[in-house]
Amino acid sequence: MRDTWILTAQCPSRIGTVDVVTRYLREQGCYITELSSFDDRLSGRFFIRAEFRPQTEQGALSEDFDASAFEENLITRAADFDMDVSLSAPDERMKVVIMVSRSDHCLNDLLYRHRIGQLPMDITAVVSNHPDMAPLAEWHGLPYHHFPITPDTKAEQEAQIWQVVQETGAELVILARYMQVLSSDMCEKLSGRAINIHHSLLPGFKGARPYHQAYDKGVKLVGATAHYINDDLDEGPIITQGVETVDHAHYPEDLIAKGRDIECLTLSRGVRYHLERRVFLHDRRTVVFGN
Amino acid sequence: MRDTWILTAQCPSRIGTVDVVTRYLREQGCYITELSSFDDRLSGRFFIRAEFRPQTEQGALSEDFDASAFEENLITRAADFDMDVSLSAPDERMKVVIMVSRSDHCLNDLLYRHRIGQLPMDITAVVSNHPDMAPLAEWHGLPYHHFPITPDTKAEQEAQIWQVVQETGAELVILARYMQVLSSDMCEKLSGRAINIHHSLLPGFKGARPYHQAYDKGVKLVGATAHYINDDLDEGPIITQGVETVDHAHYPEDLIAKGRDIECLTLSRGVRYHLERRVFLHDRRTVVFGN
Amino acid sequence: MRDTWILTAQCPSRIGTVDVVTRYLREQGCYITELSSFDDRLSGRFFIRAEFRPQTEQGALSEDFDASAFEENLITRAADFDMDVSLSAPDERMKVVIMVSRSDHCLNDLLYRHRIGQLPMDITAVVSNHPDMAPLAEWHGLPYHHFPITPDTKAEQEAQIWQVVQETGAELVILARYMQVLSSDMCEKLSGRAINIHHSLLPGFKGARPYHQAYDKGVKLVGATAHYINDDLDEGPIITQGVETVDHAHYPEDLIAKGRDIECLTLSRGVRYHLERRVFLHDRRTVVFGN
Amino acid sequence: MRDTWILTAQCPSRIGTVDVVTRYLREQGCYITELSSFDDRLSGRFFIRAEFRPQTEQGALSEDFDASAFEENLITRAADFDMDVSLSAPDERMKVVIMVSRSDHCLNDLLYRHRIGQLPMDITAVVSNHPDMAPLAEWHGLPYHHFPITPDTKAEQEAQIWQVVQETGAELVILARYMQVLSSDMCEKLSGRAINIHHSLLPGFKGARPYHQAYDKGVKLVGATAHYINDDLDEGPIITQGVETVDHAHYPEDLIAKGRDIECLTLSRGVRYHLERRVFLHDRRTVVFGN
Repeated sequence: MRDTWILTAQCPSRIGTVDVVTRYLREQGCYITELSSFDDRLSGRFFIRAEFRPQTEQGALSEDFDASAFEENLITRAADFDMDVSLSAPDERMKVVIMVSRSDHCLNDLLYRHRIGQLPMDITAVVSNHPDMAPLAEWHGLPYHHFPITPDTKAEQEAQIWQVVQETGAELVILARYMQVLSSDMCEKLSGRAINIHHSLLPGFKGARPYHQAYDKGVKLVGATAHYINDDLDEGPIITQGVETVDHAHYPEDLIAKGRDIECLTLSRGVRYHLERRVFLHDRRTVVFGN
Repeated sequence: MRDTWILTAQCPSRIGTVDVVTRYLREQGCYITELSSFDDRLSGRFFIRAEFRPQTEQGALSEDFDASAFEENLITRAADFDMDVSLSAPDERMKVVIMVSRSDHCLNDLLYRHRIGQLPMDITAVVSNHPDMAPLAEWHGLPYHHFPITPDTKAEQEAQIWQVVQETGAELVILARYMQVLSSDMCEKLSGRAINIHHSLLPGFKGARPYHQAYDKGVKLVGATAHYINDDLDEGPIITQGVETVDHAHYPEDLIAKGRDIECLTLSRGVRYHLERRVFLHDRRTVVFGN
Repeated sequence: MRDTWILTAQCPSRIGTVDVVTRYLREQGCYITELSSFDDRLSGRFFIRAEFRPQTEQGALSEDFDASAFEENLITRAADFDMDVSLSAPDERMKVVIMVSRSDHCLNDLLYRHRIGQLPMDITAVVSNHPDMAPLAEWHGLPYHHFPITPDTKAEQEAQIWQVVQETGAELVILARYMQVLSSDMCEKLSGRAINIHHSLLPGFKGARPYHQAYDKGVKLVGATAHYINDDLDEGPIITQGVETVDHAHYPEDLIAKGRDIECLTLSRGVRYHLERRVFLHDRRTVVFGN
Repeated sequence: MRDTWILTAQCPSRIGTVDVVTRYLREQGCYITELSSFDDRLSGRFFIRAEFRPQTEQGALSEDFDASAFEENLITRAADFDMDVSLSAPDERMKVVIMVSRSDHCLNDLLYRHRIGQLPMDITAVVSNHPDMAPLAEWHGLPYHHFPITPDTKAEQEAQIWQVVQETGAELVILARYMQVLSSDMCEKLSGRAINIHHSLLPGFKGARPYHQAYDKGVKLVGATAHYINDDLDEGPIITQGVETVDHAHYPEDLIAKGRDIECLTLSRGVRYHLERRVFLHDRRTVVFGN
């Protein structure tokens, strides 16, 4: 669908950060279709994202664009800037593992979007601590791994998951309502490459049963948060959040029902931003060139 | 503007709660234009709100409706239900004191809505711990009381405020960005009749500088909460909440600027619900027949 | 899930409309859990919706509630009011036919909600003018009818559809992105019992390719409308509408992608309102006691 | 408040459009804090907006930045691109005339935002066809011109308005619920520099009494549109739109009341985008780098 390459970079703030990228793109005959940059004056950090098409001198799409040479040369040229550079091809589809427990609304939603080509990813496996979702995964032609977990087998189970991630070459793990708390070790391994959906407007209502907490407090809005996981439970960097109004007539089970839609929309949006290279991790926060 | 009376009532849940109200309205020749009731099955409490017009037998508006007899008789009839009943006349305008510190956006918004008749209230006084808002209040023809406060004079200052509330017969106090924490004693006196606007989505970001807290957490939504005050700071029953999306480019001062609109809209909506008798207090939560 | 009966009624405005319903409910030992009524002063029409539980004198759920006697007696009693009365049982699941063409997002969404029990309906058939959706319907264990259509066979094809509706006893037809214009005859047969999703904020952008129309006009919001069909294309009574912000970077295909979510949410909400008896048809408008 | 210059430019799409701007900024020692560009592939048009600070070689803010030389040299350098360039200083405040009739909510809102410094503009005059708003303008220390209008005096009245615009050097005219239709001649004079607020979601409900039209159609959402005026009534390029949910209980006067908030928010947002040079006019559409 997309016919453009995506270049992203970040580095400490300094004059010339934009120019070192855009001049190079010009010299390489790259036609920029969309460009966003942001210089965070509080933390002194620079972020840039460009969509571009390599062109011949006649303006046609260049057939012999050498991506690795392009990336290498840019890094060399930008050496003084200490720049992290990343390049993504038009037809690139990130490899993804989806993890799920018993609530299947987010899984169903992601599989549908995947099926119609709305999310540029290849799902290498669906992993669960329950067997329930096997038929759904199978109907979509996806491998399903049932790895049961008990307090005693947590380490082994996580090792199984990690093996799937490793062996399938997954670059991203989506926790689509996976209800087990990951170990510190697993969190570290997945740092910056695992997106979780939490069913509250973090940092409000961390931990278990957030809709029940919300009911008890009598809030008039409920929401969901897509965030990268880190070692601090429900405190990872936030990518995007969604919200809906509720009222006194919504019992906890109604909040849960209403929340399903918000969770699906919020998680899939967060995942799309990640796949489209719109998200930059920066300490405990994110820079997102959304759309 | 409004040509209907409003009857509200609440009591423990029991069969017949609706009928005891609606049958009485029928017998008294009252024409119901809008009716809402809710029976909270978790707490076992019943709430009802009716808008009605007293009519003659010919269907004209009854000129000799005796409100106090009406209310008294209903209470007698509903004695078995232990019903709290309240009646409000079409032309009734609640007396209100507004408290403010140095941020005037909510005050400006409330005064405007008051001026064009959108909020059925009479403002008996504007009270502040600063002199800054005097010209604004005066332009609207409203008495302005400047009661400075220091840690040593808090008790005296609150006594001054309370005197204004008492002497002007105010039934509601609006804390339109009043930045002093009220004493327990004052909170108790104003319990159920003072609405505060907090500039976050409570219970997230309680306490001071919520927009700075929100920035530090990197949230993607900020909001505001209109709530009744109680003795537990920023924990009073929530009436309504508002929200807006933000992104990485919003520094704390941008969140503050963006938040002003949400605060104005949320506070004025909460106040309107209260004035229109749409809000029922019930422990730490509210029932709101909004619109 | 739901354990309450739902009673709805409408009639011309007159004093006593509420009382004739609520008094009867009381006399029959019915415990009202939620009640809404509205009296439209511009058109002089009254609408009421009550959720209730038939109870024994001891307050237990009544086991021998005679629904048809209840309904008949109420109609008799309310004869002077010319009242349309409808009663719906707690376990009642409306029979529904879903019609679809080639876009399957709404179908997929409805089938998922049906599968997890969020929509109280029984899908008796999925009907399409294309064969594409057969596997999806079959996976959900639903009969699928492929009725191709050409300009010459429109009458026959609609007869086939109508036969399915009749034979399966469907009370509601959902047009989940069915892209054929129905004949006047078919519209009349389905009047008040067929819900369509139109992919624009009606009455803006009626007719074909609304997202392209929206792009041409450069609007900054796109939306969707769930409405009852009638003989006047895209002019049927509106049940609910949804909306999303867009900007200059959204080409028509992006609007289409973004619109899918809004269409799913809006259609399923409209269908839920209908199934829960929250919608009253009234000329070209609707009264909706939403939540 | 703002300490950055803003550079905007647009031209036909061509390779090198970004580079010609960013390389020049680098060479001139300009530190870019925020950059957005968009290349419209359907119309073949390029748009760019940069916020930057001129710096000395030591990184301090340059004191001797020569804006006109900067602009001139950039135009020369970009001559091959046929680029429209515009430069705006950090302390630049656009001169603005506000026009109003009898509804003062938008005027009140704009004057408040102006007073607290949220909108970087200088209001040179408030013009009205009615005398009603004089006290409000005067309290804010602003000149007020009452120019009555009759069908016979339209030309003269518009000449009076135009004279105010000319003499005060106003670059922008805000029609804050000015209820007279401007002549073709006046529209042409103000083309691209006059923003109107229309109280509907254009292109739905063009013309008079849009809230009454909305009520008749029974829509469930109402909104407002901020747009540049042009010769085709209510068809000018849209800058931004706002929306709110409504229901059957909202009579036309309720829609009008609810609409006030949306109109204020939408108009002030549109004006802010214009003042911050976020809006590019492009035929009948706009490109808006919003935030």
